[in-house]
Amino acid sequence: MLKRYFPILDWSASYNRDTLTNDLVAAVIVTIMLIPQSLAYALLAGLPAEVGLYASIAPLVIYAIFGTSRTLAVGPVAVASLMTAAAVGELASQGTPEYYAAAIALAFISGLMLMVMGFLRLGFLANFLSHPVISGFITASAIIIATSQLKHIFGVNAEGHNLFELVVSLAGHASQINPFTLAIGVFATAFLFWVRGNLKPMLRKFGLGPRLSEVIAKTGPVAAVAATTAVAWGFALDAQGVKVIGEIPSRLPVPTMPAFDLELWSAIAVPALLISIVGYVETISVAQTLAAKRRQRIDPDQELVALGAANVGSAVSGGFPVTGGFSRSVVNFDAGAQTPAAGAFTAVGIAMAALFLTPLLHYLPKATLAATIIVAVLSLIDLDAIKRTWTYSKSDFAAMMATILTTLTFGVEMGITAGVGLSLFLHLYRSSRPHSAVVGQVPGTEHFRNVNRHEVVVTPEVLSVRIDESLYFANARFLEDRINDAVALDPNIEHVILMCSAVNFIDASALESLEAINERLHDANVMLHLSEVKGPVMDRLKRSHFLEDLSGRVYLTQYDAVRTISPHAAAKAMNMPRQ
Amino acid sequence: MLKRYFPILDWSASYNRDTLTNDLVAAVIVTIMLIPQSLAYALLAGLPAEVGLYASIAPLVIYAIFGTSRTLAVGPVAVASLMTAAAVGELASQGTPEYYAAAIALAFISGLMLMVMGFLRLGFLANFLSHPVISGFITASAIIIATSQLKHIFGVNAEGHNLFELVVSLAGHASQINPFTLAIGVFATAFLFWVRGNLKPMLRKFGLGPRLSEVIAKTGPVAAVAATTAVAWGFALDAQGVKVIGEIPSRLPVPTMPAFDLELWSAIAVPALLISIVGYVETISVAQTLAAKRRQRIDPDQELVALGAANVGSAVSGGFPVTGGFSRSVVNFDAGAQTPAAGAFTAVGIAMAALFLTPLLHYLPKATLAATIIVAVLSLIDLDAIKRTWTYSKSDFAAMMATILTTLTFGVEMGITAGVGLSLFLHLYRSSRPHSAVVGQVPGTEHFRNVNRHEVVVTPEVLSVRIDESLYFANARFLEDRINDAVALDPNIEHVILMCSAVNFIDASALESLEAINERLHDANVMLHLSEVKGPVMDRLKRSHFLEDLSGRVYLTQYDAVRTISPHAAAKAMNMPRQ
Repeated sequence: MLKRYFPILDWSASYNRDTLTNDLVAAVIVTIMLIPQSLAYALLAGLPAEVGLYASIAPLVIYAIFGTSRTLAVGPVAVASLMTAAAVGELASQGTPEYYAAAIALAFISGLMLMVMGFLRLGFLANFLSHPVISGFITASAIIIATSQLKHIFGVNAEGHNLFELVVSLAGHASQINPFTLAIGVFATAFLFWVRGNLKPMLRKFGLGPRLSEVIAKTGPVAAVAATTAVAWGFALDAQGVKVIGEIPSRLPVPTMPAFDLELWSAIAVPALLISIVGYVETISVAQTLAAKRRQRIDPDQELVALGAANVGSAVSGGFPVTGGFSRSVVNFDAGAQTPAAGAFTAVGIAMAALFLTPLLHYLPKATLAATIIVAVLSLIDLDAIKRTWTYSKSDFAAMMATILTTLTFGVEMGITAGVGLSLFLHLYRSSRPHSAVVGQVPGTEHFRNVNRHEVVVTPEVLSVRIDESLYFANARFLEDRINDAVALDPNIEHVILMCSAVNFIDASALESLEAINERLHDANVMLHLSEVKGPVMDRLKRSHFLEDLSGRVYLTQYDAVRTISPHAAAKAMNMPRQ
Repeated sequence: MLKRYFPILDWSASYNRDTLTNDLVAAVIVTIMLIPQSLAYALLAGLPAEVGLYASIAPLVIYAIFGTSRTLAVGPVAVASLMTAAAVGELASQGTPEYYAAAIALAFISGLMLMVMGFLRLGFLANFLSHPVISGFITASAIIIATSQLKHIFGVNAEGHNLFELVVSLAGHASQINPFTLAIGVFATAFLFWVRGNLKPMLRKFGLGPRLSEVIAKTGPVAAVAATTAVAWGFALDAQGVKVIGEIPSRLPVPTMPAFDLELWSAIAVPALLISIVGYVETISVAQTLAAKRRQRIDPDQELVALGAANVGSAVSGGFPVTGGFSRSVVNFDAGAQTPAAGAFTAVGIAMAALFLTPLLHYLPKATLAATIIVAVLSLIDLDAIKRTWTYSKSDFAAMMATILTTLTFGVEMGITAGVGLSLFLHLYRSSRPHSAVVGQVPGTEHFRNVNRHEVVVTPEVLSVRIDESLYFANARFLEDRINDAVALDPNIEHVILMCSAVNFIDASALESLEAINERLHDANVMLHLSEVKGPVMDRLKRSHFLEDLSGRVYLTQYDAVRTISPHAAAKAMNMPRQ
């Protein structure tokens, strides 16, 4: 029980020198990768750069205690940072203490929500987000993020709440481009693209192993940061209008208590829920992918608790919302991390950076950070997924495109809400018309099959309908319509048999529909029978009046029903040669 | 095609003297019943009494043209009137021209929405409202309506947006009760209850037929109206503080064009949608019940068009939202109506009343109308349904109680939204954990059954899982979890076979989950196979890369799969004695 909520007890018992070495190596590499990322994502969220470092200390230690994934690396990520900027930007303006306080509250509420969902085992809530909606949302977010960073590359002020406003604003400021900033931005972007595409093969040619090459290639941003910072310092480019990070306090995060402000909390409740769910879905899929490679288990409900605690930890140490990052976790895994202790060691690395490295970052150009963001998020744009979804399913494609277009046009919150709404709608639409078939007896057998697909024997006064779906509120009315129509169109029908072999569940709405069907058929002098009702469904029906009111009977098999109702016809079909 | 959109063409061709006589008789009876009802429901909606008459003319004629039910009687009904009062009351105060204009706009928008839903064949949207939610909503609405009418019975001013405010306000005004009003109100209520319970058996004792007795008993309110109006006039009770209807203009409705006011329209869009759907659900279930008795068909999508057109007609003739009324339609049916022409004749009757009867209604006490409303809505309270739902299904009961309590506490819009939200949530929760079973071979056969329920043969290196549900976004992750866990817990497993006999559909989310499962199993050196994949599902899978990437194969039957993967085990099981 204790191990369920504190998975650290599970792995710490067998911790030894080998595991320590592996975890330490991975931690060093992830720390190097995380420093520029955490600064960049803090800027993307509209927060001071050091807040990114603060969000990369406590959450990592907390996840190491509560997390069930051995290799997940939590911290600031691009999409959650964009969502933070969108949510907080509606409440306060960037740079104000209110803005920072709202970002902290967002992490706090989001963390509490995740923890409550974890304790109540509500992980299934993440199911509301279908894959096409997530994929479309991430693609659209990446496009918005990349565009929003162009202003740092150009060195201009541009604002906008959606893609089109951003583009228009950028175009309007085209004349004010700062050539030094542009040079640094373009160089950094080109360098990072080169690193991403070419460094790994080159290192391999020099004889390095595939994993090591991969890991070193991922630390490219650090080189870009170091080089451009040196150039900006050496040529005093800040005097030429190149925006740099500036003064960062050299200290560890101080404990802060999020303001207990009900008005603020209710204003950010919806964005907090969306960030929680999007972050959780990302976290769980990364964690499951990595765990499976080593045949390890993760507990989805405990992951909610762990991610929630990490966010609460981020809030009370002055950070903003964190989630499990994909590329960072892969680097952690590839670098050989064995246990969540690697995350705790990374936290120590980031804490050292916050204490001792910050003076060196004074001259770090914002354009360099923008370049790392752009190169990172462009890899999230998955145009191929759009094509695949189009080929596979038009309704999933519709949900995906609705998400992308709404996100680009109206922003992240509207985008994800529209996607979830549309996919629920399409699901209900689909299941409101379940597959059903009129069935007849296969000659020479006791089997009953679809009359449209097989040569079967039917009796004019008996209508047998097989429903291929559980009956619940979304399709209950469909069944009523279908039976009403069939009986109204064919005056010969005297018996209706519902073949329930595929019905796993009948909810109260469907029960009332069955009662209505029974009553209406009775008024029209038609008897209603059921056949092949599953055990659990029958148990439940016995708790209602339906079986007493039923004009006909419940038969164990469809053949029993037909044999009892029209014995001659059934016997004749049975004696026909089998085809 | 023309007949689909104009069902009048269908029945008018065979219209003859017999049908005319039947329809005329029914129209006279429904007119007598409708006059007090339409006045009362207009007052309930917070509108002048004559607006109720206006809403009972044009809509009835329009429904006769477009409706597919032969006997449905449309007009003002209690629940829609309450919803109108709730929606419009938030925008303007009762008695102002803005209030009336908003009610007209509500009918107009609601009508347009219904027509659009009809043309787009979106009738399935009504499926969002499960039976328990509707039933709970109507019960709670009836309680609120009955309580809100008590002020007219007591002759006091009481206000409140929910049940508790109403009760508190009534109690606060207890000292101001008008004794004359109370006498009339109590008399009318008692008389109407007596009529409802005792008049029909009495008439039958006097030798009248059951149907005629029923129909006469339904016209009881007219007697109450006549008697109390005469008393109020004779004793000039209006001078004693008894509130009467007062001056009603003696004229037909004049065509009005609803104001094209985008701000107003967007403010009432959500209530209009709720009224549309609640009204439609009521309409369609009455229409289906009555049609089935005579083995007639109704077209649910055309009913949307007809009800929508009726509401637009109501709006442009100065009326408020209308729907198909249950008791009124039953009276129409029982009185012998054969075609929708009966509705058109009723409209003529109401028009005559608006022209010539209104002076007689000057002294009609509001307490009498309140009594007719109270007696009518108390029959809508269905406490038995609450008990039945509790016995049958706890989750449906939860949705029902949430609807009732939220409606009573926060009003109609919140109530129905909470009910719909919770039932969707519970449905997703249920289908996110579909039934699935590990299966094994039944000795001596080619059948595979649940290992927990049957004595079956399993091979340690093969895990066969049968999923008893279509795979889509709500349960895709469940499958991932289930397979990941099983494989992580049992290091012997080398093959996983998914038995898809009950899978009717795989959406894009489930496809990605299958791809993830395949990839993760491959990383863990386990092969994934499918068996018994249905034709349409297979066709769809062929449009993706999944079948190429699949580490294992797709087998026609589960037995084929096991026989190919572990021939010895399958053969051994086959040769075991059948149990």
